[in-house]
Amino acid sequence: MAKKLTHIDAKGNAVMVDVSDKPATARIAVAKGSVFMAAATLKLIDTRKVKKGDVLGVAQLAGIMAAKRTPDLIPLCHPVALSSVTVELVCDKKKSAVHITATCKVTGQTGVEMEALAAVSAAALTVYDMCKAADRGMKIGDIRLVEKSGGKSGRFTQK
Amino acid sequence: MAKKLTHIDAKGNAVMVDVSDKPATARIAVAKGSVFMAAATLKLIDTRKVKKGDVLGVAQLAGIMAAKRTPDLIPLCHPVALSSVTVELVCDKKKSAVHITATCKVTGQTGVEMEALAAVSAAALTVYDMCKAADRGMKIGDIRLVEKSGGKSGRFTQK
Amino acid sequence: MAKKLTHIDAKGNAVMVDVSDKPATARIAVAKGSVFMAAATLKLIDTRKVKKGDVLGVAQLAGIMAAKRTPDLIPLCHPVALSSVTVELVCDKKKSAVHITATCKVTGQTGVEMEALAAVSAAALTVYDMCKAADRGMKIGDIRLVEKSGGKSGRFTQK
Amino acid sequence: MAKKLTHIDAKGNAVMVDVSDKPATARIAVAKGSVFMAAATLKLIDTRKVKKGDVLGVAQLAGIMAAKRTPDLIPLCHPVALSSVTVELVCDKKKSAVHITATCKVTGQTGVEMEALAAVSAAALTVYDMCKAADRGMKIGDIRLVEKSGGKSGRFTQK
Amino acid sequence: MAKKLTHIDAKGNAVMVDVSDKPATARIAVAKGSVFMAAATLKLIDTRKVKKGDVLGVAQLAGIMAAKRTPDLIPLCHPVALSSVTVELVCDKKKSAVHITATCKVTGQTGVEMEALAAVSAAALTVYDMCKAADRGMKIGDIRLVEKSGGKSGRFTQK
Amino acid sequence: MAKKLTHIDAKGNAVMVDVSDKPATARIAVAKGSVFMAAATLKLIDTRKVKKGDVLGVAQLAGIMAAKRTPDLIPLCHPVALSSVTVELVCDKKKSAVHITATCKVTGQTGVEMEALAAVSAAALTVYDMCKAADRGMKIGDIRLVEKSGGKSGRFTQK
Repeated sequence: MAKKLTHIDAKGNAVMVDVSDKPATARIAVAKGSVFMAAATLKLIDTRKVKKGDVLGVAQLAGIMAAKRTPDLIPLCHPVALSSVTVELVCDKKKSAVHITATCKVTGQTGVEMEALAAVSAAALTVYDMCKAADRGMKIGDIRLVEKSGGKSGRFTQK
Repeated sequence: MAKKLTHIDAKGNAVMVDVSDKPATARIAVAKGSVFMAAATLKLIDTRKVKKGDVLGVAQLAGIMAAKRTPDLIPLCHPVALSSVTVELVCDKKKSAVHITATCKVTGQTGVEMEALAAVSAAALTVYDMCKAADRGMKIGDIRLVEKSGGKSGRFTQK
Repeated sequence: MAKKLTHIDAKGNAVMVDVSDKPATARIAVAKGSVFMAAATLKLIDTRKVKKGDVLGVAQLAGIMAAKRTPDLIPLCHPVALSSVTVELVCDKKKSAVHITATCKVTGQTGVEMEALAAVSAAALTVYDMCKAADRGMKIGDIRLVEKSGGKSGRFTQK
Repeated sequence: MAKKLTHIDAKGNAVMVDVSDKPATARIAVAKGSVFMAAATLKLIDTRKVKKGDVLGVAQLAGIMAAKRTPDLIPLCHPVALSSVTVELVCDKKKSAVHITATCKVTGQTGVEMEALAAVSAAALTVYDMCKAADRGMKIGDIRLVEKSGGKSGRFTQK
Repeated sequence: MAKKLTHIDAKGNAVMVDVSDKPATARIAVAKGSVFMAAATLKLIDTRKVKKGDVLGVAQLAGIMAAKRTPDLIPLCHPVALSSVTVELVCDKKKSAVHITATCKVTGQTGVEMEALAAVSAAALTVYDMCKAADRGMKIGDIRLVEKSGGKSGRFTQK
Repeated sequence: MAKKLTHIDAKGNAVMVDVSDKPATARIAVAKGSVFMAAATLKLIDTRKVKKGDVLGVAQLAGIMAAKRTPDLIPLCHPVALSSVTVELVCDKKKSAVHITATCKVTGQTGVEMEALAAVSAAALTVYDMCKAADRGMKIGDIRLVEKSGGKSGRFTQK
C-alpha cells in the first residue's frame, strides 16, 4: 500500500491536518538526540554539572520552553495543551557527547512527537550556544523519535 | 591555554554575554544538517520537489522564520537584526537524505551562528513533521557550523 | 432589541468575554478576502503558481501560521486549540486579483471567526510583501466572514 | 523593463532579501484601510469613542503591537528596530466605516511598509472582533500603502 | 509534614509538573498588586481616566494579553486555554497608588494563578512605562494571589 | 513646570514615542525587586541554591528571556537590540526574601528601563511559580528602577 504525505492535499496545498473527528486520547512521545564535542569541552560541562549555572540546566529549560513553542516553529503543527514535559541531559565521556531525552504528554486529538523532537533540538542548540566559544566544531545528531503511544497509529518504538 | 564557558560568570550565573564594547561588523554564518530517511520517503519528497506544495518549500520557510525567532528559543542569545537568511534543501538519493544549508548575515556586535543552526534545525524538524505519517524512523543529524566570518574570533570553517 | 458590545463591561473595561459556562461544541468558520493588483503583477504570480517557490505557497503558510497566532494579535481573543486550518489562494485574471479562502475548525467554547479572518489577512499581506517590489499599488480588500457554524448564535452565511 | 519577484531566487527558493549592502537610511511608511459596517454598529462605536473602554482605543493598541510582530507574521520580512509607530482610527458616518491610518518609522537597511500594513490589518481585525456579536457582516477593505519614503526606490504615494 | 518543591524532581531536574492524571475542573484565580507613585503622577492618570487614551486602559489590555503569554514567560507553566480574563485598575489618592486586580478562569487540569499574577505584573509595568517620563521613582509592589479555587489543593484566600 | 504623559498625544491617542531623531547612545538600566516568603520556603530555596536544578537558576533565565520579550509585553515599548542582560538573585534570611537585580545595556535611541523591570518581574513570578505549592502567600514587591544612565534625561538613581 502506497504511503502518502498527509500534510499536502489533492490540490497541492499544504494543510494543517484536520483532527476534528479524532477522539481525545492520552498520548506520549519520547525523543532523543546528542551533541558530540571535543573531550575538553565535555569536561568543561561535566565539572559544573551539579552546580548552579550549569550548561545542562540552561539547556534543559530551553528544551522545555521550546516544546511549548512548537506550533510557532513547525508550520503545520497543531497547538496542543501539553500536560507534561521533561528533558534530561547526561554526559557520556566514552562517546564525548551530551545525550538528551525529552518526554511529552498530552490528552488530545493529536500526538506530541514534534514537541518532543523540538525540545531535544532546542536543548542541543543551547548546549552548542553555551560552549561555542570553546569549541565551534561540535555536531548535533541522532535526533529521533524513540517512543510514541496513544492515537490511531498505535505504539512506535525505535532505539 | 584553558578555554572557558563564556555564558557563565564567576559567581555561576548564566549571562547574556556583554557585547556592548564590540564594534558592529559584517558577519556571516553558514550551517548544515541532514534528515536521513527510508528511500521510499525520499521518493515521496523528490517527486513533488518542483511542484506547488512541496515538503522542501515548507521546510525552507520554517527555517527562515526560525532564524528570526532564535533569541526566543536559545536563552542566552542576543536579539539581532538579520540582514539576510537563505535556506536551501536538496535531495540526496545516494545517502537517502535531505541536506539543508542555512546562511545568515548581520551587521552587528555579535555573530549569527545560532541563527543559522536554528534555521537548519527547524527546517529539519519540518521535513520530519510532514513525512512522519509515512516514516517515523527518520533521523536528523550532522547539524554543524560550516563557516563563520566577521568578529574578533576570525574565520572558522569545517566540512 | 438593542445590540451591544460584548467586549466592554458595564464599567467601561475591555474584557475577554467569559466563556466558562459555554459547552464545548464543534465550530467552523470560513473567511475570504482578495489582493487586487496590476495585470502584470498577477501574471508574475500566475506563471509560477504550480512551481516550487511560488508566492501563493508562501502566502498560504503565512495564513496557516497566523491563524495559530491570533490570540497574540487580537487583544481580547481567547486562545483556542485549532483542530484544522486550510488556506487556499486562486488567481483571477478577470478581476486581476488573488482570492484567498481560509477555513478553521475547533471543538471548544468559542468560535474561530477571528482565526479565519487573521489567516486571510496574513496571507494577503504576504502576497503584498512578495510582490511589492513590482507593484506598490496593490490593495487588500473584501475581507469578510462567509460562513460560521456551531455555538449559540447559530449559523451565519454571506457571500 | 521586466519586473520580477525579489523574494524568489534563480533556483525558485523563497529568500529573505539580502539587505546587508544597503545603507541605513531614515524610512517612513504610511498605510490606510477601512472597516465597513452597518450604521447601527458604527453608532455603537461612535458613542463610546471619547470614553474609557472604547473599541477604537483597543484597536489602536492592537495595531501598534502588530507592527512590532510583523517579522513573526510575514515569513520573508526582516526584523527591524522601529523608532515610531502611530495608529489612528476615525469614524466616518457617511461611508458607515472606521478608517485606519498607520505610520511607521525606522532608520535601517529596509523599509517599513509591511509594518504599517500589518498595523492597519490588526487594528481592523480588532474592530471586527469587538463588534462581531452585533454585526457579523462587516467588511475590511481598501488596505493599501499611501506613502513610502527613504531607501533606493524613492518616494511612493497613492491616495 | 515537610513541604517540597514540585518543579524539581529527585535528580535535580527542573520539570513541568505532570498533570496528565488530574481531572479537568473549573478553576479561578484572582491576583492583586499596586503601583505606588508621586501624587502629581497619580493626578496625571486620574484626570484622564474616563477619557480615550487613558493610561489605565492601555495597562488593562497589556494585562489581558500577558495572561495569554504566561507559558512563554514562566518556564515551567503549562499552556492553558483561558476561558476568561479580566483586569481592573483603580486610582487610590490616599495611598497615591494604582491598584490592579486580575481574574482568570479556565476549565483544565491546572490552575491559573500564574496567569493572574502575570496579568497584574504586566499591567503594573505598563503603568510604569507610560508614566516614567514624569516619575521614575514609582514602585510596583504587593503583588500577591488573593483567591484561588478549583483543583485538588482546594480554596485559598488572603487579603 | 508641568510634567506630562509622553505616550498619549494631543488627540488622546496612545503612541509609541517617536525616537527617530534621537542619537544612538550607550544606555544602562538597573532594576531591583523582591519576593517575600515564609522562612521555611526560603530555606527550601536556599538549601538548593548551589546545586543543579535550583529555583534561582530557573528564575534567572526567565528574567533574561523576559528582557528580550519586553516589546511583546509592554504595548508602547520600542524593540531594542539588547547588548547585555544580567539577572542576579540572592537569598536574604533576615527579610525572608529573595532579592533580584537585573542590569540591561543597549546602544540605541531609547532606554532599557522597561527591559530591566520586566526581567525582575519575570524572575520574581518564576520564583513564585516554583514555590507556590509550598507557599501560596508569597508577595512580590519593591520593584523599582535603581539606576539609569545614557540618553537625554541623564542619570537617575534611587535606592
